[in-house]
Formats: sequence, C-alpha cells, structure tokens
Amino acid sequence: MPAAATPLVGIAMGSESDLPVMEEAAHVLDAFEVPYEIRVLSAHRTPHRMLEYARTAHTRGLKVIIAGAGGAAHLPGMIAAATPLPVIGVPVPTRHLQGLDSLLSIVQMPGGVPVATVAIGQARNAGLLAVQILASSDATLLQRMLDYKQQLVEKVEQMDARVQTRFAS
Amino acid sequence: MPAAATPLVGIAMGSESDLPVMEEAAHVLDAFEVPYEIRVLSAHRTPHRMLEYARTAHTRGLKVIIAGAGGAAHLPGMIAAATPLPVIGVPVPTRHLQGLDSLLSIVQMPGGVPVATVAIGQARNAGLLAVQILASSDATLLQRMLDYKQQLVEKVEQMDARVQTRFAS
Amino acid sequence: MPAAATPLVGIAMGSESDLPVMEEAAHVLDAFEVPYEIRVLSAHRTPHRMLEYARTAHTRGLKVIIAGAGGAAHLPGMIAAATPLPVIGVPVPTRHLQGLDSLLSIVQMPGGVPVATVAIGQARNAGLLAVQILASSDATLLQRMLDYKQQLVEKVEQMDARVQTRFAS
Amino acid sequence: MPAAATPLVGIAMGSESDLPVMEEAAHVLDAFEVPYEIRVLSAHRTPHRMLEYARTAHTRGLKVIIAGAGGAAHLPGMIAAATPLPVIGVPVPTRHLQGLDSLLSIVQMPGGVPVATVAIGQARNAGLLAVQILASSDATLLQRMLDYKQQLVEKVEQMDARVQTRFAS
Amino acid sequence: MPAAATPLVGIAMGSESDLPVMEEAAHVLDAFEVPYEIRVLSAHRTPHRMLEYARTAHTRGLKVIIAGAGGAAHLPGMIAAATPLPVIGVPVPTRHLQGLDSLLSIVQMPGGVPVATVAIGQARNAGLLAVQILASSDATLLQRMLDYKQQLVEKVEQMDARVQTRFAS
Amino acid sequence: MPAAATPLVGIAMGSESDLPVMEEAAHVLDAFEVPYEIRVLSAHRTPHRMLEYARTAHTRGLKVIIAGAGGAAHLPGMIAAATPLPVIGVPVPTRHLQGLDSLLSIVQMPGGVPVATVAIGQARNAGLLAVQILASSDATLLQRMLDYKQQLVEKVEQMDARVQTRFAS
Amino acid sequence: MPAAATPLVGIAMGSESDLPVMEEAAHVLDAFEVPYEIRVLSAHRTPHRMLEYARTAHTRGLKVIIAGAGGAAHLPGMIAAATPLPVIGVPVPTRHLQGLDSLLSIVQMPGGVPVATVAIGQARNAGLLAVQILASSDATLLQRMLDYKQQLVEKVEQMDARVQTRFAS
Amino acid sequence: MPAAATPLVGIAMGSESDLPVMEEAAHVLDAFEVPYEIRVLSAHRTPHRMLEYARTAHTRGLKVIIAGAGGAAHLPGMIAAATPLPVIGVPVPTRHLQGLDSLLSIVQMPGGVPVATVAIGQARNAGLLAVQILASSDATLLQRMLDYKQQLVEKVEQMDARVQTRFAS
Repeated sequence: MPAAATPLVGIAMGSESDLPVMEEAAHVLDAFEVPYEIRVLSAHRTPHRMLEYARTAHTRGLKVIIAGAGGAAHLPGMIAAATPLPVIGVPVPTRHLQGLDSLLSIVQMPGGVPVATVAIGQARNAGLLAVQILASSDATLLQRMLDYKQQLVEKVEQMDARVQTRFAS
Repeated sequence: MPAAATPLVGIAMGSESDLPVMEEAAHVLDAFEVPYEIRVLSAHRTPHRMLEYARTAHTRGLKVIIAGAGGAAHLPGMIAAATPLPVIGVPVPTRHLQGLDSLLSIVQMPGGVPVATVAIGQARNAGLLAVQILASSDATLLQRMLDYKQQLVEKVEQMDARVQTRFAS
Repeated sequence: MPAAATPLVGIAMGSESDLPVMEEAAHVLDAFEVPYEIRVLSAHRTPHRMLEYARTAHTRGLKVIIAGAGGAAHLPGMIAAATPLPVIGVPVPTRHLQGLDSLLSIVQMPGGVPVATVAIGQARNAGLLAVQILASSDATLLQRMLDYKQQLVEKVEQMDARVQTRFAS
Repeated sequence: MPAAATPLVGIAMGSESDLPVMEEAAHVLDAFEVPYEIRVLSAHRTPHRMLEYARTAHTRGLKVIIAGAGGAAHLPGMIAAATPLPVIGVPVPTRHLQGLDSLLSIVQMPGGVPVATVAIGQARNAGLLAVQILASSDATLLQRMLDYKQQLVEKVEQMDARVQTRFAS
Repeated sequence: MPAAATPLVGIAMGSESDLPVMEEAAHVLDAFEVPYEIRVLSAHRTPHRMLEYARTAHTRGLKVIIAGAGGAAHLPGMIAAATPLPVIGVPVPTRHLQGLDSLLSIVQMPGGVPVATVAIGQARNAGLLAVQILASSDATLLQRMLDYKQQLVEKVEQMDARVQTRFAS
Repeated sequence: MPAAATPLVGIAMGSESDLPVMEEAAHVLDAFEVPYEIRVLSAHRTPHRMLEYARTAHTRGLKVIIAGAGGAAHLPGMIAAATPLPVIGVPVPTRHLQGLDSLLSIVQMPGGVPVATVAIGQARNAGLLAVQILASSDATLLQRMLDYKQQLVEKVEQMDARVQTRFAS
Repeated sequence: MPAAATPLVGIAMGSESDLPVMEEAAHVLDAFEVPYEIRVLSAHRTPHRMLEYARTAHTRGLKVIIAGAGGAAHLPGMIAAATPLPVIGVPVPTRHLQGLDSLLSIVQMPGGVPVATVAIGQARNAGLLAVQILASSDATLLQRMLDYKQQLVEKVEQMDARVQTRFAS
Repeated sequence: MPAAATPLVGIAMGSESDLPVMEEAAHVLDAFEVPYEIRVLSAHRTPHRMLEYARTAHTRGLKVIIAGAGGAAHLPGMIAAATPLPVIGVPVPTRHLQGLDSLLSIVQMPGGVPVATVAIGQARNAGLLAVQILASSDATLLQRMLDYKQQLVEKVEQMDARVQTRFAS
C-alpha cells in the first residue's frame, strides 16, 4: 500500500536491527491508510545520505518524519536539524541502559530544534502521532482518529466487564 | 495578537507558577504570527474543566495543544486522552528531581495515546514544534520555518567568527 | 465474597494486563473479609468513565480506592483528583524502566492532591494499607491487623529457627 | 488547638531540622481542625523510644501517624513495623541526592508492612491524606475535604482568568 | 564449626529468602575459622526481637554484625542504632530496582550512626571486612588476611598466563 | 594530640580540597582520643606513594584507614588493594553528579577487596566507624561509644521536648 | 600561538555559551605548545557546515578533534561519523540534568564510531588526552607529558606536607 | 599475529571473566593488522604488577592502552595514573547496575588524568579508537580507517535496500 501513493510520512532507522521496534509505526500508518516510506539511514555511518534525505524530505511531499535510534541516539535530532518538518523520535530500547540513554539523547534537544519524543520503544505511538499531525489538516483522518479513540474505549469496557465478572462471587 | 484570530494552538498549564516556563511557547507563536490561546487548567485540581477543554478543542478550531506540567505531570497525557489533536508535552523543571519526574510522567505514555514530548523546560521548542505541525499544511508557515532555520545558521556563523577572532593571533 | 456486601474498597487498573499484579490487593481484602469491587478504568483511554467513577465513589459507599498503573501512570492521580477519598497508588513494573517511571508518575503529586504510594509492584501492601485505613474506625479490623502482624512475627521466628538449625554445629 | 483534644494524628520526625518541612502537615491539620501531636523521635538515635511510641499509638487514640525522614530514611517504616495504624511517609529532601534516597528508603517497603508515601518534601499532602483517612469515617471531615477541593477549583479558575486576561490582545 | 566457639560475628538477614546471598559471608568466615552465628531477624516484622538482638550483641561477645536487606532496607541501620559494634550492611539485590534502592537505604545513614556498606549482593566482601576488623587486633587473622591477598595475586597471575598463551602466536 | 601517640587511624584524601569534608573524621577521632595521622595521597597523581603508604600501613601500627575521594573515586579501593587493614571509604560530593559517581566508584568493589562505605560526605560517620572497629578490642573505647550513643539519645529528647512545647496549646 | 603553525587539534563546540567550559582544553594545548584551532559548529543548527568541517579535517592536517556539547549532545558523535580522526567528547554540564544527559548522549555510541569521552565538564582532560594522542608519535611531547605528571606528583606532595603540618601536634 | 611484531597496543582487563567482552578489541586490531598484547592485571588484586605494567608501557614500545573493568572499575584510571600514554577505558557490564557503575567509575576522572571512555561493553569501539590514535601518525592505517568507514556506508546501504524492498508495494 505505501507504494501506491506519494508517501506523507518517512520512517527512518539507523539499522535493520531496529526494524522489529519501528515497524509498529508502519502498521499504524497502514491501518489509517496513510502512505509512507521506510528507510535505513544511519546518522553515524551514513551521515551525508542521512542529511540529504532530511534536507529534501519536504520537497518530495513528506509531511512528517519518524526516526528511531538507540544509545547515543542521534538520528532523530540530526534529521530535525536538516528539515523544516516535524520529526518524531522513538527511543529504541538498549541492552544495558534499557533505553534511558536513547531517551535522553533524543528528548533533550537544545532550543531551536525540537524532536517530538514518544516513550521508549513506542513506535506505535509515533505512528499515531504522525496521523494526528496529518489529521490536523485532514478531516477524514481526524474522523478516523476519533473512531480509533472510540475503539480504545470499547476495548477497555470489554476488559472491565470481563474482570468484574471474574471477581463477582 | 492572539485575540485577533481564531486560535490554532492552545497552551495549557496546571498553575500560574508554570507561566515563566510556558510563555516561551507563546513568544514563538507570536514571532511566527500563529494565533493561540493560553489557559490555566489543572489535571489534578480541575479535572472536569480540563477534560472538557480537551474534548472540545478540535471543534473550536484548535489544531495543536501544548501542555506543560511538573512532578507527577498528568496534564499533557490527560489532554491527549480526550482530544484527537496532537498534544505537545513540556516537562516543567521541579525543585527536587529537576524535572526528571516530569519528563518520565509525560513521555512514557502507553500505546494508543501519544504525547509529543520536548526537553525539560523547553517550551520554546514546544512552540516551534507546533509551528512545524501547522506548517506541514501551510506553505507560508513552512517558508517561515525555513527562514528561521537559516537565522539559526547565521547566528552560529557569527559566534564562530567571534570565537575564531578571539583565539587567533 | 465481594458481591455479598456493599464494597468498601475499589480496586482500579488501566488494563486487564495489570491484573496479575493488582489481584494481590484483592487477595488481602478477601483474607480480611473486606468487601471490594474491581474495575478496569483507563485514565488515557476512558477518561470520562474513570473520572465519573472517581467522582461518585464516596456516594456509593466506597471508603478507599486502590489504583495501579504503569509508565506515565496517571490513573491513581486522576482518581485522586476527583474523589475526596484516600487513594492508594500501586506503581506497576514496566518493561524498560522497571517501574521507576511508574513510581515517579504516581508519588510526585503536587500539593493539594495526595496519592498514598506503595512500593513498585506491591499491590499486597496496597491491600493492607486499605485495611489499616478502614481499621482506624473499625475495632474488629484493627484486631485482625494486630493478629496479622503477630503472624508475621511467627513466620520470621520459624525462619530464624530453621536457619539457626541449618548452620548449627 | 492540638492540646484541646485527644490527638488523632501523630506527626513524627527524626530531628528538629526536619521541622520546616514537616510543620506543613500540622498547618493542614489545624485548618481541618484535626487534633494532633508532634514528636521528635529518631529511628537511629532513639530506637527504643521510637518503637515504644509506635507500639502504643493506637491504644492512646491515634488513628494515623505521619513520619518524615531523610537519607536512609527508616523512621516511617520502623513506625509502621510496630503499629497497626496507617503510616504516612514523607521523604525529606537531602543535600546530595535531593531526596531520591529518602523516597526509595521509604516507599520500597517489603510485603506485609506498607508505608503510604507522598512526594519528596510534600508534608502538606501527608496532612491532607491523614484528613482523608479520618474522613472516610467522619462525614463532617468528608464535607470539609469536598469544600477544600472546591477551593482548589476556584483558585485555578482565578489563575486561569488572570492569565487569559494578560495574554488577551 | 560456628557452634564450637563463642561467635565473634553475627550474620543477620530479614528473611530466609536472603540466605542464598548472605551465606557467602558465612563461607568466608568458615574459611578464616572465625566463629559466627546466623539469624533471621526482620526490622519490619520482628522489630522488638531485632532491637533486643542488637542491644545485647556486645554483651554476648560479638565483635561485628553483618546485616543484609533489600528494598527499603532498614535492618543494617536499625541494628546499628542499637549496638556500639561496627555493623556491615549488604544491599540485597531487588527485583525491580536491582538493589539500587537497597544500597541507598543502607549507605545513606545520618551522622552519628554509620553502617559499613559493601557492594550490592557482595556478602563475600562483608565476610572479608568482618575478618579485617577482627584482624586489626589479632595477629593470626592478620597473617591469614595477608595470605588470602597473596592467593588473589596468584589467581590473577594464572589467569594472566592463560590469556597470554591463548592470544600468543 | 594525634602527634603524641602512634597513630591508629590513617586519614587519606586525594586533594587538599577534600579537607573540609574529611576533617570531620579527625574531629571525631579527637573527641574519642584516638591518635591518627592525616595525609594527602592521590591514587591518580601519586599512585606509587599511595600504594607504598597502603602496603606498609599495618607494619607502622595503623589499625584502620579512612579514605575519601570524589568522582571516579579510586583512592579507597586502591588503598584496600594494598593493605590487609579495614578501609573506610567516604564518597566526597561532586559538582555535577552530587557524589553519586563517588558513591558507586567506592562501594561497588569486586569480590575479594571490600571497602566499608559510608554516606556521601559523611566523614563524621567514617570517624565513628573507625572508633567502633577499634572499640571491638578496646573496652575503654567501647564504653565511650556507649556514652556517645547515650548523648545522641539525650539530644533527641531535648529536641522532642522543644518541639512538643512549641506546638502545645 | 595557535595561528603560528598548522593546527594539529580542532576544538569544536555547538555554541559560544560552551566556551567557558571548552577553553580549558585550549589552555592545556597552549601550555604544551600544540597548535590548535577553535570553532563554533552546531550539529543541530549548522549540520552541513559541521559535517564538512569533519569530513575535511584530516586533509587539512588535523590529528585530533575535541568536541563539546550539552543535553542531547550530538556534536562529538556526528563529527566522529564524518572523520577518520580520533574524536574526544566533552559532556557539557546542563541546567536540569547536570550533564548526565550530555554524558550518555556522547559516550553511548554504537559499534563502528567511537567517541573518546571524558568526564562531565572536563575539557582540561580533553586537552591532555589530545596531547597524549599526539605524544604517542612525538618524543618531545611524550617527555612534556612525563614532566607534567611529575608536576602533579610534586603538587600533591606539597599539599600532603601542608596538611600534615597543620594537623601535627 | 600479535606475537610477530612489537605490540603497539596493550589490552588489559581485571579478570579472565572480562575476556568475552574485551576480546572484541583484539578482533578489531587483528583486522587492522595492528600488533597488540593482552593481559590480565587487576587493580585491586595485583596493584603492584598493574602499576609496574603501566609505568613501563611506553618504554616497551606501546602507544595506546585499552583497559576494561566493571563495578568500581579502577583499572583504566590507575593505568592512566602511571603512564603518559593515552588510555582507553571500557566499562564492562555488571550484573546489578548494568554497567552504569562501571561507566561512572571510569569516565568521571579528575583533572590531570584523562581516560578515553567508550560505551558500556563497547570493546570493539575501544579497538577502533586505538587504531584512530595510531592512524593519526600512520598514513596506511589512516587509509584503512577510511576504507572501514566506507564499508560501514555500504552495509547501511544494503540494509536500506532490503528494507525498502520489503515494504515496497
């Protein structure tokens, strides 16, 4: 599906090994029928390619970029450095510090260059945030987001019913 | 200026004491000529008003909400719970834990309800992120954002020149 | 047993997945013969239902509410925002930060709205604290609590005897 | 005022130097007209007196104990060890670790002996929590707590009005 | 062996579940032929027994006490409160915070009541420290400690030789 | 006074700038009439002198060594590496990490080489611990330690009386 | 002095505000008579200039680059991404998290792209490390480094003498 | 291969158990054809041998030393204390604190004695940094480093191609 239309969202990660975390963002965009592209671009190993990708992103029709990285996680911030688009950062969990290093490396950006950071490992929320950003100028997407939130309500109500039943004498 | 047009951005905080931090977001929106409103709404002290504000925000024309809070910082997440709009969270610095508590309380949102978190105390970046979100469907704002980034470049170049001069000879 | 009498304690959690942690509170209340109800109510996914539950809790006869949540854990604090009853917060362990995020999100409440926080994952202690609160105006429960503490003494004495025997000679 | 009636709440601290933090609990109890006593009892320097105080507290009419301590903060947990009453712990801020050590020393109690922990330095919330505990069996206090929460609402509304005025046009 | 002579070292822990960690201290004392006793004494569940043990320890011939505890780890500090003897604290690893809570609860003692804290889970080093303390007035033990340190040297030299061989050529 | 007798305790620090923290240990030893010596020895700047000091300490009559250091605090552990005597480590507070780095660098010693660690900045407790170690084979010192603990009791009782008076009526 | 010869060391920082921290590196290089250049280059605000500087550094004769940055500190890692030279990273202290964020953002680099990280705020040590790197192929510099270390020894010996005198008698 | 030529790099670790982490440094040096030696030298168990190794390293032709250690990790700093050569520190992961203790113990060195610290467990990057240091005066090694960085680019490009293919259409 993402190939069918001009991508509105770019999903970038520094290594294929981040894909199991990051593909949840793609699944959300699929569900909301938002076209996207997905790229492996490393701030540390392919800095020039990464910067070029970021610099030209808005000229190719992208509206939002999601970037995930772990440890000294520079990808989201460096993409944000080179694009006027909103950049969503996903702190990828790490082996030793569990993603606390990733989180601080992504969220603590200096004045002038924000990165919209989500929870450690929460690429799903990065996808939802991208949809919300697009939805702020797209009534159809906004309605889908309202519907999605209604589904969350229903899912909790079902859990509530199950638990009450189970504990009712 | 914000009174002149329908606000596109809502800036919310839990207490007037957060204003010195949060008004930097307003200054950015002023500079980009983005109309906004600014409100004191407490998740913990006025939960019903806060939730009502969030629930109706998109129907009143708001496109983005910026929310700042400190400590067990629930305002951004609770607004995000009740609106389909993108919500930007600003962790307000705290006296004892320096805002680490605020940061974790805001950024570690569960799947389904993202908050776009910026650095501790970085309301300026929250304002810039709001502009970037609006700019993704507004070519004039996008150009202003590109101009802004060019100003950052020039400012660094001036600093670079000054420092090189100082250490030359 | 909880269905037989008007519940005095409400146990709330944000997701059925918190049940393995939170049901320890129920087991304690069962053991002390305190009637309770148990609910899935999400601050982030069902904010209106959650607030309504909290707002009316004292009118339905509840005396204490136990709420568990993980990550950006807003449920205990938001229930506390809307009820005059004492609210006990249980920080549910999390995958990446092991519940440190849950703990800070629950315990660091601002002035005016306390949450009685227990240890990470210690729903058993939340149940005991609820019993202690009820016992402060119920002599029967107070005696049961004294008996319970005596059982703790005996259990330690048995362990002491076993260990001394094992290391003797 | 506390001398006039049998104290219902005991406020304990390990040193007179904790008084500036802990007296906020007393101010809250004064405001709610709850009789209390206030004591300096050190877990580390007067362990026997401290334990005797805790052991007999419920026999002297106390219903709740508030205990504050800093660093390796053992007072709340040790009082909880020796009384069947609910114990509220206040982590007193410390010079080097800002009260993070106090918080973990108080909140991370093992199964069987809870301490109802509030935020670092939040003796005011400890006082409010004591009132809520007493209010669960005292309709007058419950009404006062509802009134107090209404005052919080009004205070936020006033701040909201001031801020809106200031930023209007 | 410990039964044969008056114990010089007391090893205390709050629960039998700490034994796998704490028995390493006993193994060290066995190796140095230092008589000891080992007890389960809980600060939180058997506070009076624990205090009585500590208060009388020096009158029964003990010279050092080793105490291990986890979480809000009060046992070492409370024993130190009631004895003039040196107390060695072992932070027992915990499930969620890995013993960081235990460490801070034990080491951050206030002025007047020290606890000689060793590394998280290092009961072996607690045993060695007890031997060093006894050795400062016992020439035989001092020589054994010097011999022990020489064994450490030899063990490292053997590892060094193995590794050099493996990487040679 | 320390010059009059063979020193029993060595107090070492890495820099004269640590003296304001470390001299509290000397004050305690003065008060208990324990002869000591005080030295500036840097693990990082004078490693050979430091190691020589440690290697010969027990042959010169020292019974205990107190060592303070900050940041990557290697002095206590390196002295412990080269002496059979008990070594007490004082984590000196640091400018940026407040002594958390000092604490972990000192306390987390590997198996075989313990350092008896006290609280951040607590050289006073290091002095008391040294006295306790000496007192375990010196009945006069043991009695002084018992007297000292009694003074702590009296000081708390005086504070207790003052606070009760202040809040009475 | 740095202008007189081809610079061997580049000192880079993201903002003029980092100069008070970073100029200590320059002072060290002055003292060792190592020619250097000093530049303001921002990873986030001037990414293309920064990358160009790094890419060409070795072709212009630089042998080592020192880079300092704070918060989400990307400058050292991004320079390391684009140069084959050794890069020394200085974590600049930050207002809220005291440089812990800077440290993790700099040191936790992924496999393939190291940054030689020094202590928070320790630009002096960055300068010394640059000298050590150059000295490994420059016998004159190596001798100066040996002399420098001898000066450290003498300085400690003087402090030791002063402190011993002060506490003698 | 390392035996064939005079070693330029020394790899030291405190225990054979660190070898699985540290041998990655050796693999890198093998790949770059840099002769090295590998040693087990413990700061805490063989302090004199360790210091002697460090003191004479530059006289035996070594140009760089890589040292790995865990917990209260003193080996890198103590080697740096005794050699004029650049020392690279590898924080070895630890069981309870995951290497955060190792990291702080290694990186937070005081002024005068730097340790070039790499990420927790990143001995591979320590090897690369050693190569970069040697390469700053060795054109052949510099070219190999440029080639290595080009291989990193190609590897990322291949991952990028694979991921794009997988998500296309």
